[in-house]
Amino acid sequence: MVSNESSTNRQAAAPAPSGRVTIAARSGASVALRAGQSLRVVNTHGAQVVDLWAFVAGSTEYLSMPHSVVTLGRIKPLPGDCLVSELREPLLELVEDQSPGTHCMLFAACDPARYRLLGAAPGHANCADNLRVQAAARSIALTSIPTPLNLFMNTRFTEHRTMTVEAPQARAGDSVQLRALRALTVVMSACAQDLLPVNGHDCTPQQVAFEVID
Amino acid sequence: MVSNESSTNRQAAAPAPSGRVTIAARSGASVALRAGQSLRVVNTHGAQVVDLWAFVAGSTEYLSMPHSVVTLGRIKPLPGDCLVSELREPLLELVEDQSPGTHCMLFAACDPARYRLLGAAPGHANCADNLRVQAAARSIALTSIPTPLNLFMNTRFTEHRTMTVEAPQARAGDSVQLRALRALTVVMSACAQDLLPVNGHDCTPQQVAFEVID
Repeated sequence: MVSNESSTNRQAAAPAPSGRVTIAARSGASVALRAGQSLRVVNTHGAQVVDLWAFVAGSTEYLSMPHSVVTLGRIKPLPGDCLVSELREPLLELVEDQSPGTHCMLFAACDPARYRLLGAAPGHANCADNLRVQAAARSIALTSIPTPLNLFMNTRFTEHRTMTVEAPQARAGDSVQLRALRALTVVMSACAQDLLPVNGHDCTPQQVAFEVID
Repeated sequence: MVSNESSTNRQAAAPAPSGRVTIAARSGASVALRAGQSLRVVNTHGAQVVDLWAFVAGSTEYLSMPHSVVTLGRIKPLPGDCLVSELREPLLELVEDQSPGTHCMLFAACDPARYRLLGAAPGHANCADNLRVQAAARSIALTSIPTPLNLFMNTRFTEHRTMTVEAPQARAGDSVQLRALRALTVVMSACAQDLLPVNGHDCTPQQVAFEVID
């Protein structure tokens, strides 16, 4: 079930979309996965960050980065790592990483306040609002915006203290594959940040894509 | 207003406690601060982590570590840094740090699931439940457990990837001072982790303390 087929029942079984689904630049999409299905997220143009969230079907449980950091003992996931919920239950396994592997688990999603503080005009596309739209279409009640798994995001740390954000190292066609360990709704957003080099020099044309693998 | 004087009105003005208030080992406390007041958190015994949360009076706004990391460009705060809410509004300024300055902004609070997975018997004291108790007493509705500012927590990062938790470097009497930039309720928990060296070898006797400074 892709994003433009809205559901009023978060527990509803949904056929997975077949083939590759495009996510337009600066916008979001969502997909329902059965336990055992995998999601491949493709960096179609390269250098594009994809914010990713996951919500357990029929529950308020959600993918939690601060709990995953503790469980993994890592701030960047490796293949074989299982990302967990706020109840520390495994939700998504990173089964394959065909990218340089520089993802970020620490960075809040861009949102209207972020762009206002950066001096952008009101109405700038942003990942938090993309999540809100997708969540509403899936009848997922958001009480806050969880920290996303920022796929392909190239955050670096110096002397354990300073964090810098550099252009992604991901090349066109790079991808990651995540396996659902429970029935999940996954929301993705092609990050809309064009005032900083988070997505390289220009995210405007950089659509991304995903596909579901049984 | 200290924790054992419960309030049914989160907006209520509250006299600050005078003098130093002790937080028993493995337990929590809370305090209402007016804008401009400062809170000094004292590591009475040394080597003790203090989880700290803040909630804006009369609002659902709360202190957010993933947003603060973005605002600061740092994963460990320095004096002069202003920690922000999920709306990216400054809430608390770290005005003085009389400790080695190794605090953690990335680590989810310990909770019942954490201790279950570590093999502890049910009922282990934990910081998330300490927050829940304090929040209930202050009529703060928690929809999730925000990532705390883990004062004195000695997380280290290797090659931008691996995170380790070592015994705190804080010595007896070390302290940090945080200034409220808005009216806030601050909740603290003397971390109850005794299965890992988060709090040195034994947190059982390690009470901490706080005081409010006008």
